[in-house]
Amino acid sequence: MDWLSELRPIFYPRTLAVVGVSKDEAKFGSLFLRALLNFGFKGRIYPVHPEGGEILGLKAYPSVGDIPEPVDLAAIMVPAPHVAAVLEDCLAKGVPGAEVFTSGFAETGDERAAALERELASIARRGIRIVGPNCFGIYCPGGGLTLLPGGNFQRESGPVGFITQSGGHAVEFAREGRGRGIRFSQVISYGNGCDLNESDLLEYMAQDDETRIIAMYMEGPRDGRRFARLVKELAPRKPVVIWKAGLTRTGGRAVRSHTASLAGEEAVWGSFFRQTAAVPVRDLEELGDTVLALMHLPPTTGRRVGVVAGGGGLSVAAADLCDRLGLEVPSFDDGAQDKLREAIPAAGTSLRNPLDMGVPLVMAPIFERVLETVAADQHIETIIATQGMFHVLGGTFGPPPELRERFLQTLVEVPGRVRDRFGKPIVIVLPVDGDEVEMIEAEEGRRKIRDQYLSMGIPSYPTLERAARAVANVAAYYAKTGRGSR
Amino acid sequence: MDWLSELRPIFYPRTLAVVGVSKDEAKFGSLFLRALLNFGFKGRIYPVHPEGGEILGLKAYPSVGDIPEPVDLAAIMVPAPHVAAVLEDCLAKGVPGAEVFTSGFAETGDERAAALERELASIARRGIRIVGPNCFGIYCPGGGLTLLPGGNFQRESGPVGFITQSGGHAVEFAREGRGRGIRFSQVISYGNGCDLNESDLLEYMAQDDETRIIAMYMEGPRDGRRFARLVKELAPRKPVVIWKAGLTRTGGRAVRSHTASLAGEEAVWGSFFRQTAAVPVRDLEELGDTVLALMHLPPTTGRRVGVVAGGGGLSVAAADLCDRLGLEVPSFDDGAQDKLREAIPAAGTSLRNPLDMGVPLVMAPIFERVLETVAADQHIETIIATQGMFHVLGGTFGPPPELRERFLQTLVEVPGRVRDRFGKPIVIVLPVDGDEVEMIEAEEGRRKIRDQYLSMGIPSYPTLERAARAVANVAAYYAKTGRGSR
Repeated sequence: MDWLSELRPIFYPRTLAVVGVSKDEAKFGSLFLRALLNFGFKGRIYPVHPEGGEILGLKAYPSVGDIPEPVDLAAIMVPAPHVAAVLEDCLAKGVPGAEVFTSGFAETGDERAAALERELASIARRGIRIVGPNCFGIYCPGGGLTLLPGGNFQRESGPVGFITQSGGHAVEFAREGRGRGIRFSQVISYGNGCDLNESDLLEYMAQDDETRIIAMYMEGPRDGRRFARLVKELAPRKPVVIWKAGLTRTGGRAVRSHTASLAGEEAVWGSFFRQTAAVPVRDLEELGDTVLALMHLPPTTGRRVGVVAGGGGLSVAAADLCDRLGLEVPSFDDGAQDKLREAIPAAGTSLRNPLDMGVPLVMAPIFERVLETVAADQHIETIIATQGMFHVLGGTFGPPPELRERFLQTLVEVPGRVRDRFGKPIVIVLPVDGDEVEMIEAEEGRRKIRDQYLSMGIPSYPTLERAARAVANVAAYYAKTGRGSR
Repeated sequence: MDWLSELRPIFYPRTLAVVGVSKDEAKFGSLFLRALLNFGFKGRIYPVHPEGGEILGLKAYPSVGDIPEPVDLAAIMVPAPHVAAVLEDCLAKGVPGAEVFTSGFAETGDERAAALERELASIARRGIRIVGPNCFGIYCPGGGLTLLPGGNFQRESGPVGFITQSGGHAVEFAREGRGRGIRFSQVISYGNGCDLNESDLLEYMAQDDETRIIAMYMEGPRDGRRFARLVKELAPRKPVVIWKAGLTRTGGRAVRSHTASLAGEEAVWGSFFRQTAAVPVRDLEELGDTVLALMHLPPTTGRRVGVVAGGGGLSVAAADLCDRLGLEVPSFDDGAQDKLREAIPAAGTSLRNPLDMGVPLVMAPIFERVLETVAADQHIETIIATQGMFHVLGGTFGPPPELRERFLQTLVEVPGRVRDRFGKPIVIVLPVDGDEVEMIEAEEGRRKIRDQYLSMGIPSYPTLERAARAVANVAAYYAKTGRGSR
């Protein structure tokens, strides 16, 4: 099926009907309308309200049929019993797609509500594609389309597609992604998935060239066999990162009342992940961390890591952590230790891997020699380096105030240079530097440094654990797909 | 042994000799001296330098023996081969204790260096107690004593004692604790532990009434049998939280070169944790999270939790998480669901436990009715509630600007009131709200709200996982010690 022709007009609509918008500006319909306007939807918006009139400065029409031009997408938020009638109007007008935000369908567990949902599905089969019901809809920056609380989402598009059954996670991931340099082609919250389900949306994203990485939050697929077949075929060429929720007993129970899904069994999903190249993650944080790593780390990213840390305790923690995550921490070459001893005046007791630099922050030339030595080591495939306690720059240990900015800039340029020279991926850990109200400037500075790293294509994480886990996930993906170095 | 008489004069010294301080103000000795002065050491400080003279405005003496009054503690940072001679001087003068920062002893793996360390130990047996070598020393706010990079550490004392083999972790925990409301009686970085080891320090903290909670970072105990016996006896009456590092193959290797310790085997330590009430944690973050929970949560804290979340996806995630952590999420009483449906206008689809409030932030009266209903449920022992996206207060969804502050204050007072009325512990999750440079004000606001909660004795965590893990650890501790409700 040509999903691009089928769905692109819906995700990039020129005209949009918003059905169920009230004149009360505090109600969902108006808020959604306002979010769209804030976000900067470029096409024409037609509010639909039985009494017509004007809403937020836009002329309202009594029904979809009254709108004076073709409509590409209808956003529907009328109460559950009225959704079918609106969809019939849309069908009559030839509207190709709808996002149904309304909840109160199969997820309630009520048979009459489930029957209402089956009715929507049968209308869909007559010629209109439905996202939802019980969802937050579509965020597609390229199409100027956003979710209800998404008036200030990132307007720039990017390589990540997110397919999610949870609207809350759609909002959270889009928001969090904004700060972390993750840019989206589409985020689609599809809720109960009465028509378009995870497999349909996955096929669409498989065909969409803008989408290079697919992230999914799933409670239960509508058609597990089709989904498994699709992922098996797709994942080797386009990474698919999946947070499968509800696999515990308690979680499975929660899933039924959230999106009326059957969560399935842990064993079944375990074998799914073994048999495909899909990357399993366990929460939204790991989903974002892994996607970020996939955006920037090349197929040569391997699980043999060189860890550069400041402090002996930290290097022990790093060793334990890497071992638990299945990363290897090979010993450095014979010559490397001597070079390191020479390079680091404040060296701690371990010049082995993980390397203890002795202090959490060193001057740029030292940092460069250390990274070079580690990168030159033939046993090392990927480098994880920590940089901490930037506040010391302002203290006794730091350079004089007038040199601070320069010190920092020189330091931040090091990892990109070493990566380019040796062709080895580098990930930087930037821990939150104190967690006090009074340290808020340090946190602002940390975020700026992180953004600089991101702009150079260097993924950065606030903890070693999150960095190591993201590297482990990406290395496992490349190892499985045979795109890696070995 | 009466450890209080033995060690208190050392931790609360009236006079302090700093041996190995150079006239170069960028060297460790001067930096340490400056940290002490900044921190506000109340006693008299005597720098020791072969040439005498003046250092940072203090009169220096050629040797410890030349100091004109009794010395309680010597801080020693001369090179490794000279440490023994300084200790002999101290012994001759009757100095009761020393902290030896110098490294280059057994941790190097070199036999001559190990012999030097044995020499220190044998001097100690002749009548001086040694912390170190290869350590960062003692942070004891009550005694005005701080670590090298601890000039601006928290000056207020508190109930937490931290015994750590890693100086880096000592600094990190003391710094992090400051922002998180964790207050310390002592933090003792004891490095190679040639004289005072983890068991000695543990006995001291067992006898010290100010210390109510003991945290430990350990690479390998000097005398495992004694340590196990002590913990077994102590933990039921004073919680001991232990981060045992180096239990993986890679970690064990790192431990040997860090503090010359034998890490031991995972199975042995597993049985240690089963046979004692010590609380095992896996990293510094979990150590802090658990200590914070122990500071505030009562012995009735149990593993049957009521989770209040905003968003269906979040409640599914909470269910999975609790299940994995061994927390129970019992169904609410029959009447509770009706009450909740009444209380929450924006209710999501799940009025079960974990509860989906539909939105991440609700008004104070709604939040109060929700917490009351959950607290009144006889199956629930502990409540974990999330509050997110405070930035919406400034947006379309929020109250008018002039009411914002009032809205927030009213909201923050709710959990404490419900806790007091129903006698059930409450933990609050306050997620970081966007991670962008532009959102830094939101982060500042979040930290302020967290501090308000802390001042009311309500522990707060940035993620549900960290909150749930801390609750699980504390509930397990109280269940094991029979201090819990069941």
